[in-house]
Amino acid sequence: MVSLTEKPAETPERLAFYKKIAKSALTPLWVVFSDIITPEPKSACRPHLWNFEAAKAYLMEAGDLITAKEAERRVLILENPGMTGSSQITTSLYAGLQLVLPGEIAPSHRHSQSALRFILDGCGAVTSVDGEQTTMEFGDFVITPPQAWHAHGNETTEPMIWLDGLDIPMVSHFDASFAESYGDDVQPLTRAAGDSFARFGANMLPVDFEQTKQASPIFNYPYARSREALEQMKNQNEWDPCHGLKMRYVNPVDGGYAMPTMAQFLQLLPKGFKTSTCRSTDATIFVATEGRGRTTVGDETFEWGPKDIFIVPSWQRVSHESDTESVLFSFSDRAAQQKLGLWREDRGNV
Amino acid sequence: MVSLTEKPAETPERLAFYKKIAKSALTPLWVVFSDIITPEPKSACRPHLWNFEAAKAYLMEAGDLITAKEAERRVLILENPGMTGSSQITTSLYAGLQLVLPGEIAPSHRHSQSALRFILDGCGAVTSVDGEQTTMEFGDFVITPPQAWHAHGNETTEPMIWLDGLDIPMVSHFDASFAESYGDDVQPLTRAAGDSFARFGANMLPVDFEQTKQASPIFNYPYARSREALEQMKNQNEWDPCHGLKMRYVNPVDGGYAMPTMAQFLQLLPKGFKTSTCRSTDATIFVATEGRGRTTVGDETFEWGPKDIFIVPSWQRVSHESDTESVLFSFSDRAAQQKLGLWREDRGNV
Amino acid sequence: MVSLTEKPAETPERLAFYKKIAKSALTPLWVVFSDIITPEPKSACRPHLWNFEAAKAYLMEAGDLITAKEAERRVLILENPGMTGSSQITTSLYAGLQLVLPGEIAPSHRHSQSALRFILDGCGAVTSVDGEQTTMEFGDFVITPPQAWHAHGNETTEPMIWLDGLDIPMVSHFDASFAESYGDDVQPLTRAAGDSFARFGANMLPVDFEQTKQASPIFNYPYARSREALEQMKNQNEWDPCHGLKMRYVNPVDGGYAMPTMAQFLQLLPKGFKTSTCRSTDATIFVATEGRGRTTVGDETFEWGPKDIFIVPSWQRVSHESDTESVLFSFSDRAAQQKLGLWREDRGNV
Amino acid sequence: MVSLTEKPAETPERLAFYKKIAKSALTPLWVVFSDIITPEPKSACRPHLWNFEAAKAYLMEAGDLITAKEAERRVLILENPGMTGSSQITTSLYAGLQLVLPGEIAPSHRHSQSALRFILDGCGAVTSVDGEQTTMEFGDFVITPPQAWHAHGNETTEPMIWLDGLDIPMVSHFDASFAESYGDDVQPLTRAAGDSFARFGANMLPVDFEQTKQASPIFNYPYARSREALEQMKNQNEWDPCHGLKMRYVNPVDGGYAMPTMAQFLQLLPKGFKTSTCRSTDATIFVATEGRGRTTVGDETFEWGPKDIFIVPSWQRVSHESDTESVLFSFSDRAAQQKLGLWREDRGNV
Repeated sequence: MVSLTEKPAETPERLAFYKKIAKSALTPLWVVFSDIITPEPKSACRPHLWNFEAAKAYLMEAGDLITAKEAERRVLILENPGMTGSSQITTSLYAGLQLVLPGEIAPSHRHSQSALRFILDGCGAVTSVDGEQTTMEFGDFVITPPQAWHAHGNETTEPMIWLDGLDIPMVSHFDASFAESYGDDVQPLTRAAGDSFARFGANMLPVDFEQTKQASPIFNYPYARSREALEQMKNQNEWDPCHGLKMRYVNPVDGGYAMPTMAQFLQLLPKGFKTSTCRSTDATIFVATEGRGRTTVGDETFEWGPKDIFIVPSWQRVSHESDTESVLFSFSDRAAQQKLGLWREDRGNV
Repeated sequence: MVSLTEKPAETPERLAFYKKIAKSALTPLWVVFSDIITPEPKSACRPHLWNFEAAKAYLMEAGDLITAKEAERRVLILENPGMTGSSQITTSLYAGLQLVLPGEIAPSHRHSQSALRFILDGCGAVTSVDGEQTTMEFGDFVITPPQAWHAHGNETTEPMIWLDGLDIPMVSHFDASFAESYGDDVQPLTRAAGDSFARFGANMLPVDFEQTKQASPIFNYPYARSREALEQMKNQNEWDPCHGLKMRYVNPVDGGYAMPTMAQFLQLLPKGFKTSTCRSTDATIFVATEGRGRTTVGDETFEWGPKDIFIVPSWQRVSHESDTESVLFSFSDRAAQQKLGLWREDRGNV
Repeated sequence: MVSLTEKPAETPERLAFYKKIAKSALTPLWVVFSDIITPEPKSACRPHLWNFEAAKAYLMEAGDLITAKEAERRVLILENPGMTGSSQITTSLYAGLQLVLPGEIAPSHRHSQSALRFILDGCGAVTSVDGEQTTMEFGDFVITPPQAWHAHGNETTEPMIWLDGLDIPMVSHFDASFAESYGDDVQPLTRAAGDSFARFGANMLPVDFEQTKQASPIFNYPYARSREALEQMKNQNEWDPCHGLKMRYVNPVDGGYAMPTMAQFLQLLPKGFKTSTCRSTDATIFVATEGRGRTTVGDETFEWGPKDIFIVPSWQRVSHESDTESVLFSFSDRAAQQKLGLWREDRGNV
Repeated sequence: MVSLTEKPAETPERLAFYKKIAKSALTPLWVVFSDIITPEPKSACRPHLWNFEAAKAYLMEAGDLITAKEAERRVLILENPGMTGSSQITTSLYAGLQLVLPGEIAPSHRHSQSALRFILDGCGAVTSVDGEQTTMEFGDFVITPPQAWHAHGNETTEPMIWLDGLDIPMVSHFDASFAESYGDDVQPLTRAAGDSFARFGANMLPVDFEQTKQASPIFNYPYARSREALEQMKNQNEWDPCHGLKMRYVNPVDGGYAMPTMAQFLQLLPKGFKTSTCRSTDATIFVATEGRGRTTVGDETFEWGPKDIFIVPSWQRVSHESDTESVLFSFSDRAAQQKLGLWREDRGNV
């Protein structure tokens, strides 16, 4: 189709016309059509890997430069090299590494953005969500749903580091950002620790429970349990050519994703497994939680080890290879894309 | 909360640190936090009104400057004055005025973007969607769902003008744009005109029908019928303080919106009606189809008459006043925002 | 499997044992297993046809025998000949022919049973549901949803006859019958006639509408409109081998059936059309609204003409043949069976 | 309303008329109206308690009287004393006690009826469902979904006894019974034991999983885990006046009930707790798994201890009182009633 590829010649008359109508907030479609409706996704988002140890060194340095009080949330944004200055890791998502030093606490606040944290370093700090507290350990997947009051603190003697994932760019795209702080430094705890998990995590629901929001009532998915599920499933020895053995975290109330805009996954690759080359429209952030291997994105290959973080942009061909049995946590905007009918997957020749 | 308002001081050490980590695709959150998670929506989108007659004059001028062949779709984008160069009317939506001269046809193409057209001028041109043709008249609301082949042509003796509304920015935001042209100039018609409307428009469904896509199988919602519904409902004499009498177009298969990302509405304001002041997070494009009146957005007031188009940004207070019985068509990204749990409405003191 | 076919021998010891445990409200499964879990549906329900004119004659006779005041609802139950004394037309449904003479009214009442009426004779009597009135004509499909107050009256000069269809046996099966009368003879009208149809029948919904019950807000589906839809679809000349051209009535709010337990259909058979032989688990009541033809159920054949009513039991093979272009209205418990995962269809060799 | 209470007088003319029309499969509604549409549920179902030890003695006796081969499923039906000869425990459900002696196996079969088993006595026998095996212990809730092949066997040295619950009467009511045997005595195991539980029980789902049937992919809900959830929730010390602490078992895929027609619950009553008096339309079968207490149904009171089974009919007022901390498992047709819009609860003055 013409307009998908070419543009009409720019004659003096036309340029004069464009200039004139611009005053009336009008501009010609035929000049930009092929740039805004593309045959395939055309993104500024670039693949990249962040080495955890290097990033951690910077984080610790930040710990000296900035007090918790100054920063409230002492976070280094993982900014996509293709989108410098945008505070984004993909076109729709934000990711950052957060450091909480012993004795530090972050006061309670809430916002319309969905937030996840995936624990990488340290053990024993606590997060409270809507008045219930949970203790965090390596690999735990913790959510703070939209508009849920949340705070955290580190009473332990070691620094704690986790990965934050938020839909900040998406919420900005929709002009729907709301945020407020709780005011007092400490929000009272109103439920016993572990209550939500007991209430909703055992394939049962309170008989009179009614779902009132689009998020999981479970806010900590312990790594021990998710990992054990993968371990059990290994016995079946069934491997998906694209994904190895891949699970998505679900909201027990409806079987949907844990939060309305973001999807999270945990996958296992057996030793020496090489996936086929696949692609999908949801740019995905991966964290290696166990093992070593490499991932090829387009024509770039990234070697990863424990806690390294890398990003695979939309529609770029990706394949993983594991040297040892490996586990990858990942998240993307697939939850949003599927609701909007935009998500597409290409499993190659599989 | 500190970080919602303030930023840590910029010392030389810190600036040096920021510069250093930038090389590793890292950047401090505390410098931008208050800009990316705002207490309320903070948008570049500005309210604006396009006078139809003025825009039409430019369109006709474009008709001389650019052949249909050159432009394929001869459209003047209604570009939001707050986002010059972005080809957007809101942060998530695109809108444009399309002119089709007698004898012109636009070949068939399809894309992952959802598209609506609302007929403003002329009568009798045809649109075909997935092999079925419909004739368009003033006020008809026509959809071309994602990935549906669509084309149009004007066999009449007068120019035809309609408003195009698409989710182009949203699809770009998610890096999910796919488009292709049909190739041949003419896609064969495989269904009798009116078949879809008969099949799905009369509160019945084919007994074996199964929904396979997130869009309405009705692709032309005739104005005559929608207007008649409002006329009947007037008898009840019930008026919503914010909206007068407001209806949303629905997908008969599930009662949802006609397309997955955009919502469309038709509302009636009785003569001399003044709505209360309300606001919502979905920036909305309005078209006056009948009557005269004015709309106040924030502290700006826009006088409108038949076919004028105006935009109300996210979360700005809006009120309408009608001098004569008036009808407003409108559309927004509410369909997407509600699915993502982002939509919020403030009905003021109502 | 043994127990699907045979039963253990009845020895004296066993019979004594059975007698003994009976005192403790215990009884052996192996004696009844093959009767209660059958390889295929085994029903007392028999196929039958009621000639309308003959039934009408009895109805008029009942009009003399019983005053409206005495009977409140002067109805002759269409009782399945295989289930005499049960007041049922199928195992789960009830059907009856109701006569309302000029000047008669039936006071308002409500119940947990879903009720439909399909107008057969006369024109102009009114039904009111939840404070809105509708005028009834031949072929109109009118619903009175569970717990909706409803009444009717005949201000015309001719008798009115319609078919009632209710889920009385199903509600009894679940021990969930609730009923009450409105008290006063006349329930006030609170909405203009036609308001519900305008509000919900034109593929639009009030912008703030929230579904609060499992039934359609439209309570009169006019025959003229449903018939016109079939007429339009004829042009496509697509015929289903089992059904000809068959549509189901839907709830515009969610695309489901008009009521929670019963499904209703309208189908067209072109002149001289003979369907293939199919079967399904929902015993179905058919009413011929136009044309003449015959239906074969198992090894019985029923000749039908306008307004005749016949029943096809569960899982019996059925085929239709039309001498002239014919239209059949039908209803069954398919809505319930599908929700419960019980519905099954066998389309034969199709 | 007249017809809800009275019936027209029976004159000779009328009786003659009734007799005459009966030949045409017609019968007067006014004679039966008040019997078939009742102001409140009016059921033959009666409250009753089965003492487990007494029933077990009879079961063992049956073990000598009938070989497994003869009976295939050696079950004593818990037949409601108000519905003798019906093989029902409620109007819609069946329940029985099944004995499997050491070395016995029951060959694989399947049917459209949903079945649950709740383990009462013995430990270690196995059930296989669709090619996966699970070992059963006291309190485990095991399901065999509609049309799922299932078999069981007891390789242990002790007898095994469990409670069977099926929707046999409901499936008969809808004339939708289908059943077949697998043929060979042993169905091959195709999945590792525990695979389904790992795959679906940990609040994760396989990334490509698509729901294809209305039943939970988990087929054994271990008592240890369900009981532990209640134990944790006790800490919150929140007690529902009607139910104490009551949970429903859910299908992790959609948060609905484990099977399409039946609902199952597990509830804890702290020591000395007395519930208020409530009622609902779903007749419910209770099994005391722990503790001692009494339940009052209408004006009858039933003392229960471990493994005793009792039935509470539809809409009868019920209250529970626990002498020691007690746990009750229960099941009913609530899943079906809610889908059909029939379920109703009366929480008394609560």
